[in-house]
Amino acid sequence: MMASTRSLLRTKSLISNLPRFSSNYKCLDVSVNNDNNITTVTLKRPPVNSLNLDLLSEISDVLTDLKKSKSPGMILTSSSDKVFTAGLDIMEMHKPDPERFKQFWYALQDVWMKLYGSPFPTAAAINGHAPAGGCLLAMCCEYRVMVQNFNIGLNETQLGIVAPIWFIKTMLNTISIRDTELALTTGRLFKTDEALAVGLIDEMATDKADALKKANAFFERFEMIPPIARAYTKDSLRGSDIEDLKKNREKDIQTTLSLITQPKVQQGLEFYLALLKNKKESAA
Amino acid sequence: MMASTRSLLRTKSLISNLPRFSSNYKCLDVSVNNDNNITTVTLKRPPVNSLNLDLLSEISDVLTDLKKSKSPGMILTSSSDKVFTAGLDIMEMHKPDPERFKQFWYALQDVWMKLYGSPFPTAAAINGHAPAGGCLLAMCCEYRVMVQNFNIGLNETQLGIVAPIWFIKTMLNTISIRDTELALTTGRLFKTDEALAVGLIDEMATDKADALKKANAFFERFEMIPPIARAYTKDSLRGSDIEDLKKNREKDIQTTLSLITQPKVQQGLEFYLALLKNKKESAA
Amino acid sequence: MMASTRSLLRTKSLISNLPRFSSNYKCLDVSVNNDNNITTVTLKRPPVNSLNLDLLSEISDVLTDLKKSKSPGMILTSSSDKVFTAGLDIMEMHKPDPERFKQFWYALQDVWMKLYGSPFPTAAAINGHAPAGGCLLAMCCEYRVMVQNFNIGLNETQLGIVAPIWFIKTMLNTISIRDTELALTTGRLFKTDEALAVGLIDEMATDKADALKKANAFFERFEMIPPIARAYTKDSLRGSDIEDLKKNREKDIQTTLSLITQPKVQQGLEFYLALLKNKKESAA
Repeated sequence: MMASTRSLLRTKSLISNLPRFSSNYKCLDVSVNNDNNITTVTLKRPPVNSLNLDLLSEISDVLTDLKKSKSPGMILTSSSDKVFTAGLDIMEMHKPDPERFKQFWYALQDVWMKLYGSPFPTAAAINGHAPAGGCLLAMCCEYRVMVQNFNIGLNETQLGIVAPIWFIKTMLNTISIRDTELALTTGRLFKTDEALAVGLIDEMATDKADALKKANAFFERFEMIPPIARAYTKDSLRGSDIEDLKKNREKDIQTTLSLITQPKVQQGLEFYLALLKNKKESAA
Repeated sequence: MMASTRSLLRTKSLISNLPRFSSNYKCLDVSVNNDNNITTVTLKRPPVNSLNLDLLSEISDVLTDLKKSKSPGMILTSSSDKVFTAGLDIMEMHKPDPERFKQFWYALQDVWMKLYGSPFPTAAAINGHAPAGGCLLAMCCEYRVMVQNFNIGLNETQLGIVAPIWFIKTMLNTISIRDTELALTTGRLFKTDEALAVGLIDEMATDKADALKKANAFFERFEMIPPIARAYTKDSLRGSDIEDLKKNREKDIQTTLSLITQPKVQQGLEFYLALLKNKKESAA
Repeated sequence: MMASTRSLLRTKSLISNLPRFSSNYKCLDVSVNNDNNITTVTLKRPPVNSLNLDLLSEISDVLTDLKKSKSPGMILTSSSDKVFTAGLDIMEMHKPDPERFKQFWYALQDVWMKLYGSPFPTAAAINGHAPAGGCLLAMCCEYRVMVQNFNIGLNETQLGIVAPIWFIKTMLNTISIRDTELALTTGRLFKTDEALAVGLIDEMATDKADALKKANAFFERFEMIPPIARAYTKDSLRGSDIEDLKKNREKDIQTTLSLITQPKVQQGLEFYLALLKNKKESAA
């Protein structure tokens, strides 16, 4: 059986096209590993890869390309040596124009549905802090390797906001209900080793190179697995979460917009922006 | 952000009222800790804090008071040094008057919905045995500290009765499906250290003072967390369980009444009462 | 209460009949342990207990007999010293006659519903490899003891097929969501000690005798538990999974048949059969 499967897979790889990527990405580096055909997508929106509409749209596009080209797998990582991604861009949420905000949130939903539900396997090489939306992207992947001494978690409550139900379901797909409740109500950020202990990540790495090596090794587990059976199996486990959002997409946008535009939440965001500005000026 | 959140919270605490409690409680001691404004509710219905209609009604009332007064948190503990609570009062289930039983069970449902779904954080300082309904109240809290060498568990099957589905969901919110099934089918009571190992409690304590100290420390995690975001997040995780009971409240009462009034169950309760009586007489 | 329950149970055991088994089983050995009245069902279809229509029908029948006779419990084990069961018989899936396949799959659904939902407690003494359908039968039991140095797992994706949703739910009832996803997408087979670490089995044994001893010891936990309360409690946890299949039984058969008859899947099965044939010939 092993031998036969291998033959089938080889035949398949000869007739399928290798991924072809648009060279138009401004906030991403996209490269294919010649040894295993795994694509590494590197977030590159300095300084902290804040997820704005532009970056999310590019991630959405690359996920579509990878699916079309029947990629054998994707690694998500960051060009920064300190931050994987700082999460959603505050500028998209501060005094939002409703139309722009809807596009922004729609793009985030898109990225989540495509990444959480990708037919190809995915791994995150988390080489920096991954709060809020950064943790979400990492949890959407099927495997997480994280460089030591960084933080990861859904810390939304710390900002006075609430993680949407699909963020929560993504965490419930990763760690236990008990750990999810404690983490979410306290807005906890886990150090790399704490994240490993609770199962929020799968492996620890010493640096980015080590993280990429371990992430690449993860895909060896699928070398003998027919991709269609794999994709169906993943869908059996994650598909209903995605269906739930699809059905409630408009409502989710409206709920989030009305939450974000509450005076108290806007006030909190303003304080936060002022803090960031002070930080920059004192650093300059 | 931390600084700004703290400012918002301070403003909030100035305009909100401190909790005011009825002095009419007969089966409860209610006191507020001056350091952190956490309310300690002490069950005080000797000898074993059996949950009858009176005690449940008072717990229900204090939970309403705490919600109205926007309490920052509650600790549930016992005045006994041996028993947290022995669970539902057998006298409410032995040869029950249907009307009284309905009130009793309705009050239990009320306490569960208010405690499991409280907007404020909750901790149990379990300073004695917590079988059946005692375990339920402890699991409704968000954190459990338990004094060593006591027992806790949903041991209903030992009595020939079945834990209602909302008891079961409360356990599934706390420990794994696998551990829940093994615990419920065997009616297992866990020693304190076994409960810690399986995640049924969060911390072990040497005595009541130590348990209260550790329970109080739990609330420090919420000092920087805006209460509304916290409450919404908790509701995202527990809300659907509560909605399920709300929809099936009458049916749940009828099912339980018809289970309890089965001759075999009543026979079992009678044997149990005879046993308790003998115990008392031989102790006297 | 303990004493009274024991009395009730004793009365019960006097009036209930001891199990009586058909002597017509060709692929099973069925024997009752005189010490505890636990029935041991031994799979006996050499060489590897492949689950074909005949074997499944007999398992289904014995489960019905055990339920009718109010058995206090069942142990499932194998007459082979190398294989618990190799899973579904490939011959039932290779170039299937649609009518025969429907009967076969219907019998498998029957066995699953009766074993996963049995009112009596069940344990698997896994004394050999338990891939795919073998792992399924083991997971249907309430307790698993496994002899060291064998493999267990739902490795369907390795064969290019997809584990049906009720296989997946059975694994989710046993181990965590995270471990289930990793195991299913990679078609992982766990060594005995790895299975223990992840919770896929409950105890490790040195050999079959040790496995049977430990499986028998499991039933001591129920000696004081009234069987009806136990059965209702198990149903509270597993019943909805069974209801889901009952509702979708026909659809599940159709989906599986159309998956199995896909040219690529048939091609995979043919390679596998050729491999098995070569193995036999080179061994002869």
